[in-house]
Amino acid sequence: MFILDLILKKRNGMKLNWDEIEYFVRGYTNGDIEDYQAAAFLMAVFFQGMDADETLCLTEAMLNSGDIVDLSEIPGIKTDKHSTGGVGDKTTLIVAPIVASCGVPVAKMSGRGLGHTGGTIDKLESIPGFQTSLTREQLISNVKEIGLAIAGQTGNLAPADKKIYALRDVTGTIENISLIAASIMSKKLASGSDAIVLDVKAGSGAFMKSKNEAEKLAKMMVEISRGAGKKAVAVLTAMDSPLGMSIGNALEVAEAVDILKGHGPTDLKEICIELAANMLMLGGKGSLDNCRKLSAKSLSDGTAFEKLLEMVKRQGGDPSVLEDTGKLPMASVKVDYKAERTGYIIQMNAEKFGMASAALGAGRKTITDTVDPSAGIVLLKKYGDIVEKGEPIAILHTSKKEKNSEALEILKGSVLTGEKPPPKVPIILGRIE
Amino acid sequence: MFILDLILKKRNGMKLNWDEIEYFVRGYTNGDIEDYQAAAFLMAVFFQGMDADETLCLTEAMLNSGDIVDLSEIPGIKTDKHSTGGVGDKTTLIVAPIVASCGVPVAKMSGRGLGHTGGTIDKLESIPGFQTSLTREQLISNVKEIGLAIAGQTGNLAPADKKIYALRDVTGTIENISLIAASIMSKKLASGSDAIVLDVKAGSGAFMKSKNEAEKLAKMMVEISRGAGKKAVAVLTAMDSPLGMSIGNALEVAEAVDILKGHGPTDLKEICIELAANMLMLGGKGSLDNCRKLSAKSLSDGTAFEKLLEMVKRQGGDPSVLEDTGKLPMASVKVDYKAERTGYIIQMNAEKFGMASAALGAGRKTITDTVDPSAGIVLLKKYGDIVEKGEPIAILHTSKKEKNSEALEILKGSVLTGEKPPPKVPIILGRIE
Repeated sequence: MFILDLILKKRNGMKLNWDEIEYFVRGYTNGDIEDYQAAAFLMAVFFQGMDADETLCLTEAMLNSGDIVDLSEIPGIKTDKHSTGGVGDKTTLIVAPIVASCGVPVAKMSGRGLGHTGGTIDKLESIPGFQTSLTREQLISNVKEIGLAIAGQTGNLAPADKKIYALRDVTGTIENISLIAASIMSKKLASGSDAIVLDVKAGSGAFMKSKNEAEKLAKMMVEISRGAGKKAVAVLTAMDSPLGMSIGNALEVAEAVDILKGHGPTDLKEICIELAANMLMLGGKGSLDNCRKLSAKSLSDGTAFEKLLEMVKRQGGDPSVLEDTGKLPMASVKVDYKAERTGYIIQMNAEKFGMASAALGAGRKTITDTVDPSAGIVLLKKYGDIVEKGEPIAILHTSKKEKNSEALEILKGSVLTGEKPPPKVPIILGRIE
Repeated sequence: MFILDLILKKRNGMKLNWDEIEYFVRGYTNGDIEDYQAAAFLMAVFFQGMDADETLCLTEAMLNSGDIVDLSEIPGIKTDKHSTGGVGDKTTLIVAPIVASCGVPVAKMSGRGLGHTGGTIDKLESIPGFQTSLTREQLISNVKEIGLAIAGQTGNLAPADKKIYALRDVTGTIENISLIAASIMSKKLASGSDAIVLDVKAGSGAFMKSKNEAEKLAKMMVEISRGAGKKAVAVLTAMDSPLGMSIGNALEVAEAVDILKGHGPTDLKEICIELAANMLMLGGKGSLDNCRKLSAKSLSDGTAFEKLLEMVKRQGGDPSVLEDTGKLPMASVKVDYKAERTGYIIQMNAEKFGMASAALGAGRKTITDTVDPSAGIVLLKKYGDIVEKGEPIAILHTSKKEKNSEALEILKGSVLTGEKPPPKVPIILGRIE
């Protein structure tokens, strides 16, 4: 087999078979196939696409390129959750404790933030002492004992995806549904859970800007999961505005705690209950409606919060900062972001808020940057609220004063106002199983 | 400027401006742009195409990447000819002497054969002693004195094209009209002539399989030439069957001499007169009709043959082998290729004959192979002729007996027969100026 033949075949719009796709993945990962040929191949895939069968094969080939975590020692149906990434998305910090507190084990591996979106691991590390590096044995024993662990990736999961993604990133071949779906699912399937709930976001702050595109991606990922023999459900959620009122690591932990204590913003609460309910349903806890009730109850009766405290203690963190979130790392500099015009907020550009938060120190431009746990943005107003010119819309938190002007520059024009209240928009856009 | 932005711009179907295309060509040639990014860019161009303006810019950027031959010392309008490559195409050996003998100077740089098509330099080197390596000074002084020189490339012409072509060759990005046109024209324009006749071939033995594609390529090349301020005409010619009766280096020289002596096959003669007439017209020798008459006369009165002899002497070759072509290198092994069926020849696959000739030793698989000047194929029958099963259609010439079986294997099924005589087909398909 020759890679040039595969490039030509895909370029000419023909379907590749499993042997051919495996040949590409194996050959590129082990260095037999050159970067420039892989780049041409990926651009041909960008234009010609892959069907469901080819996408499944690509996923499995990348999955099989590395370790696959074995969670079989843990009894029960282990469920996982994946979000395609948004701004202010602290749902894992809430959903995982809900699910675990209802008796479905969660052994979750999470990532760090990059660009304008955050990562669960960075958020957890704003809790003093919290250990995100667990061995496989620690991860398993924690889940066996308390039903919940959240850690950074252990093992060498889907190295083929890592290499291919890095190439796509510099060759303009990211934005293809099949390549995106295979990349996400190869890592998810390698994480070893039995069932997966996918939070696929659509909107200005999401990777998929339109609901239509998000829906296609969701369908493809659910189909891959089914092809690989694992149950999956996708929930389509809106990501036009930031989720909740806080963006940034410690700030988001504090907001997650608010929700777990029965308070907090309704958009965030609604998404968390829906995601947790789907995980519980896949975990065998009855109908989706029943699972929604279980989820809501675990928030209102405090059992989910207790579960988070248990996990924090177990992973070396200081639980007192959750009892009193005022003890979390706090920014020394706070500056208002003020309304540019009077009116109803009809748009709040999530991506710009994410970028501004990153500029304040909450995010990374490159994978080697460190984050400031205290940095971020707290919203005072949301979509639909009325503001007066000069009234604060948000408070910028940072430990470096000079970052404020960069963040304010990014935020310029990020909030649009109108004379009439905008229509209400749903936060849950759909569900695919 | 960042190459990733240019990849995305072209990928998304937008037009690149001159600065952007120059940035790509310069950056890739000097190594600032990586192979994998250039490969992705070229595949995006393959799918999205380039308009006339972008193609002209690409051509000029590649042209300006290296030396441009200065022929201004030679008085008169220097005309050049380019063929997109065919099987049995020895037209340069005939056309250049015709044009020079009619008083229009020809300072021609030619190439070597690769794959199933031959090259003029290889053909000329089958004349004992003939020197194809001339310095620029030798080339110019020869043309000043006798009006004609044919040499291998001197100087470093269009190095950007060389590097880009090599990458296209291994990344499945050859077959794009703009990339092909820019590649050909950057080299042609660098060769320094004032006017160019393009022989654009269409058919099974050509790069462009359909007349439609060949016409598009021809139009684009003529347009580039005009954009670069040089006169050009394209002649579309058929390349379904091999041209003339001989394929292979010394065999083609012998056939060229036949034509120059007023004999030889009519298809070849017709093409040569048409190409020479167009060159003469561009060289200022009056109407195309008048130039056709001048060309035919120079064949019939022997002045074109005298011009070839003059050039051969001047470049160190032995002219006696042209007076008696029996003295050219001759193959030691000759084998018949016999008709598989009885009937009229309705198809003679030029590409297969070219590949068979290359297998016999007349061609190269890679640029470093050497060629056997005596190897090749002499046709005994052509399209439209009647053959009986077992009757020889062609004679294979080689100096290595073991090559015959490979060549015969390639030729299997290359000649199709029918019960009725096929329709006559024209050899000149069109003309674009």
